Amino acid sequence: MLNVGIDIGGTKIAGGVVALDGTIIEQLRVPTPVDTGALADAVAAMVGDLASRHEVHAVGVAAAGFIDRTRSVMLHAPNIDWQNAPLRAQFEAQIGRPVTLENDANAAGWGEYRFGAGRGSTDMVMITLGTGVGGAAVGDGSLLIGANGSAAELGHLRFVRGGRPCGCGQNGCLEQYASGRALQREIADIADGGGIGSRLAAHRTAAGIVPGADLKLLLSEQDAGALEAVRRVATALGEACGAFQAVLDPELFVIGGGVAELGEDLLEPTRIAYETSLPGFGERPTARFVTATLGNDAGLVGVADLARLRT
Amino acid sequence: MLNVGIDIGGTKIAGGVVALDGTIIEQLRVPTPVDTGALADAVAAMVGDLASRHEVHAVGVAAAGFIDRTRSVMLHAPNIDWQNAPLRAQFEAQIGRPVTLENDANAAGWGEYRFGAGRGSTDMVMITLGTGVGGAAVGDGSLLIGANGSAAELGHLRFVRGGRPCGCGQNGCLEQYASGRALQREIADIADGGGIGSRLAAHRTAAGIVPGADLKLLLSEQDAGALEAVRRVATALGEACGAFQAVLDPELFVIGGGVAELGEDLLEPTRIAYETSLPGFGERPTARFVTATLGNDAGLVGVADLARLRT
Amino acid sequence: MLNVGIDIGGTKIAGGVVALDGTIIEQLRVPTPVDTGALADAVAAMVGDLASRHEVHAVGVAAAGFIDRTRSVMLHAPNIDWQNAPLRAQFEAQIGRPVTLENDANAAGWGEYRFGAGRGSTDMVMITLGTGVGGAAVGDGSLLIGANGSAAELGHLRFVRGGRPCGCGQNGCLEQYASGRALQREIADIADGGGIGSRLAAHRTAAGIVPGADLKLLLSEQDAGALEAVRRVATALGEACGAFQAVLDPELFVIGGGVAELGEDLLEPTRIAYETSLPGFGERPTARFVTATLGNDAGLVGVADLARLRT
Amino acid sequence: MLNVGIDIGGTKIAGGVVALDGTIIEQLRVPTPVDTGALADAVAAMVGDLASRHEVHAVGVAAAGFIDRTRSVMLHAPNIDWQNAPLRAQFEAQIGRPVTLENDANAAGWGEYRFGAGRGSTDMVMITLGTGVGGAAVGDGSLLIGANGSAAELGHLRFVRGGRPCGCGQNGCLEQYASGRALQREIADIADGGGIGSRLAAHRTAAGIVPGADLKLLLSEQDAGALEAVRRVATALGEACGAFQAVLDPELFVIGGGVAELGEDLLEPTRIAYETSLPGFGERPTARFVTATLGNDAGLVGVADLARLRT
Repeated sequence: MLNVGIDIGGTKIAGGVVALDGTIIEQLRVPTPVDTGALADAVAAMVGDLASRHEVHAVGVAAAGFIDRTRSVMLHAPNIDWQNAPLRAQFEAQIGRPVTLENDANAAGWGEYRFGAGRGSTDMVMITLGTGVGGAAVGDGSLLIGANGSAAELGHLRFVRGGRPCGCGQNGCLEQYASGRALQREIADIADGGGIGSRLAAHRTAAGIVPGADLKLLLSEQDAGALEAVRRVATALGEACGAFQAVLDPELFVIGGGVAELGEDLLEPTRIAYETSLPGFGERPTARFVTATLGNDAGLVGVADLARLRT
Repeated sequence: MLNVGIDIGGTKIAGGVVALDGTIIEQLRVPTPVDTGALADAVAAMVGDLASRHEVHAVGVAAAGFIDRTRSVMLHAPNIDWQNAPLRAQFEAQIGRPVTLENDANAAGWGEYRFGAGRGSTDMVMITLGTGVGGAAVGDGSLLIGANGSAAELGHLRFVRGGRPCGCGQNGCLEQYASGRALQREIADIADGGGIGSRLAAHRTAAGIVPGADLKLLLSEQDAGALEAVRRVATALGEACGAFQAVLDPELFVIGGGVAELGEDLLEPTRIAYETSLPGFGERPTARFVTATLGNDAGLVGVADLARLRT
Repeated sequence: MLNVGIDIGGTKIAGGVVALDGTIIEQLRVPTPVDTGALADAVAAMVGDLASRHEVHAVGVAAAGFIDRTRSVMLHAPNIDWQNAPLRAQFEAQIGRPVTLENDANAAGWGEYRFGAGRGSTDMVMITLGTGVGGAAVGDGSLLIGANGSAAELGHLRFVRGGRPCGCGQNGCLEQYASGRALQREIADIADGGGIGSRLAAHRTAAGIVPGADLKLLLSEQDAGALEAVRRVATALGEACGAFQAVLDPELFVIGGGVAELGEDLLEPTRIAYETSLPGFGERPTARFVTATLGNDAGLVGVADLARLRT
Repeated sequence: MLNVGIDIGGTKIAGGVVALDGTIIEQLRVPTPVDTGALADAVAAMVGDLASRHEVHAVGVAAAGFIDRTRSVMLHAPNIDWQNAPLRAQFEAQIGRPVTLENDANAAGWGEYRFGAGRGSTDMVMITLGTGVGGAAVGDGSLLIGANGSAAELGHLRFVRGGRPCGCGQNGCLEQYASGRALQREIADIADGGGIGSRLAAHRTAAGIVPGADLKLLLSEQDAGALEAVRRVATALGEACGAFQAVLDPELFVIGGGVAELGEDLLEPTRIAYETSLPGFGERPTARFVTATLGNDAGLVGVADLARLRT
């Protein structure tokens, strides 16, 4: 049985036909239209195109935003003009197939759980460190949804009381301390301070950021400024994972998103901070930390699998 | 169908025959033996006694401690000499009926979810404020267990980095800021400071604590010291619930245990702190806060129901 | 002996002839020119005018900004275009009398120490809660200046690690938690949250703030939202004063600025937080908290007295 | 002119004849008697002995404890049975020369300021990292005493709200995060955690500590566990120094005590944390960090100099 996964990102829509084992049989990409009508048409056309060549059962659509508990209504999307939009019904009418919606971070988490870094686990947490932070939690093999459909908003764990203001209206959210943007903020602070920041400063682009490749180079040379910047973000991430452990008790943390490309340079200080802040029950096993393996396909694959399960 | 619930506490064992609707048909109580063999005999005798008068299907046993993922082995119990004890197999051999184990806080949470304050919800968090703190989480109608059987250890959320040492070996755990013991510590701090603490000081017993009834009296008279002590504990509790909301997204927080007897005097400042620290997603619904309704029977009733479900 | 004090504020310049006992013999006010040349001319003209009617010895000039250790050069001023400006030499050339410079918060602190709420003490801390926070410290009868002229920048004590960004480039400064602006932020948070914030919300002006008079009214009626907003600011203030006590050991905290007009409604919760966070040496005396008594004249009177002492 | 300095430690009394330039002409040592009478006799005998060979002007006595503002009465001493003891009068009667008292950390700070690492500065802070933390502050060339004689209790800055309990009765004091004892606690935490702590664990003595020489060895080999332990303590120290800068504005931090023997391994991460938490006024100069140079003689030399100044 084949299902289609659609991952609506800020700049492009990716759609793919996904087999039961998570293999992508065929994948298409188009730019994301700004107009919501044009966007729906683009999704419908993409599904129609794929379905003309493959026998498709159901369709899963992943996008950033808050989705109601029944996965039918997009309550609020940060990048697209959807407010209380009954997307599932609209898409089903246009596409003529069963549709499910899912938050993009949840879709990616489910993809990794089923076919990627989380395969074989029962209780897993995925943290996607992009510009912001996305979260997903799997408990006893089920995706955690929550009473209002907003469980696992892990980037909005309040990490510092009275902390940095967050776009969500709250302050001190983890996202302000462990994300791609937070990493660049730490880099800027250290670069501006001179001393150990001098090499970071030299690698800043006109836009004021240090590109990932440059950062990896500096880390490989044990540059003190680069190590310090990553250590700060990793410390926040690891301490937050200690909190997630107390609540969710996963066996595995999967770290994804662009920041996760730092690999062990990120994971090693993360584990130290995690172990430091983990409620210490003596014999208690600790969770493993791994990086995601499906890259940008995780959401597409995951939401296709959720479509299969829910329809 | 009737099931038996056994709640092994620090000082007594309560056992009851529980109907499908949570009604306790008959209940017995005996002191808790120190010796583990005598304890097992007491449980078996109690079940035998109850089963001689009722048609019993299965037996659930609740006790404080860490229980493996399969709910068969007590990994570590704080009050009883059980280390990696295969209690399920032992009890089944002695009792001759299917047995399940559950952590006492989880059992109480499940009891409230099914038959008490949480009835009708799908996603609920229960926090039991006794001497320490117990936690339970229900997600989409299932009790959250975790990869190692230790999910919802809500009292061991790290609340203050570099905070008060906790009996678990970690520091800064919520239990050190929001529990019966934490409340008495705040009371002592305020009483010792003179000023607004003078009436609290006057109500201290020889053991150095202010009994609950005295505290309620002072609260009813708007004593500034008593209000401040409760506010501190409620602030910690409410802020932690903001974190639990971000992760678990319950519709309901049920507050139980002895401290919950303060009722609205506790819940009102808790809600203020919760709302202050809740990731603010605009339209997002907030959870309700209620006190538990089953009292000391929650664990017994809950574990009997879990026995029914699991066997 | 008479001296002139000049207090250059953001909107007006106040100048006065001050007697040895702190009495203001005559006072003038003019708007603050934007141009630095015009500003200097206005100060010179004001001094000339006053000196035509009084026998003036020396002149003290107070303004917001960082002033070098010798009190001769304005290193950086937040509101006026002075960078490394040798103001003392310039003013002395224009005025023909000895001149001293002082930071405005220090001038006000010295004024209160000599003639206001701090009279009779030897070690005093003044905290001015205006839009931002100003600080001054007197130790054994001397104004604390510091190696770089920037001691007693009390508003920039780091109060929350990883906290709210501050205009000074740092984050988590006390000014972001205890100041007029911080108070309005807490009010806004509480008002936006509904519940106990409903009356605060009703008193908001078009500019989104709750005027001081309205706030005092609500406090007098024990409005829970107003009490909570003030309590938050007072808690930050009181905890910071605990830190200042450990370092400076004053016998007196004088609280000035617009927020101090809340009087005991502010001071009472401040004292509670102070005592809670004070290093507790048993018998150790605690400092008193009082509000300033000289109001807007404190800076003018203080800097005139400093002119006398230094010239 | 020669003066005598007496430094009463927990295990021994050191006494020395000190020249105007801080040179110790002759030094004696005796064990510290437990009995306060015997202790006073020992001090008097030591002074008598020294005075028989040198022309001595005045005597300074340094000891741990809280001393009144006039430096005449020991209010409370942690190690010796002195409570409100009029030591100055007692010693003067026994010794027949003018006497001053000083807190041991203040005496050491004054010694370093006048003759050691702080020479040539005007505003200096000294932090002595022994088992606990001692502090001293010099402002514009004067030792900061405070209204109650207890200024510069820098180890009791509240560093973590709700933090580790401190022997002073308060919680979260800096001493619990940056001191010799705190360093050993971090070492123990890391050693117990396995992983990067394995080499630390291997170097633990029967008493459970890692001796300084072993720690220096591990640091020289870039052992990750040792680096992490020191980094934690240095981070707390550096952040606290950011707070001291905002209040006292020194040009120099002198770090003394046993932990300071780690030298640059301690100072380098301290500077990073200091700069991170320093209120950032752009052009503002930052303070230098150096280690103390007088070692155990600092207190004796400092209190002799204070005796000269005060008598």
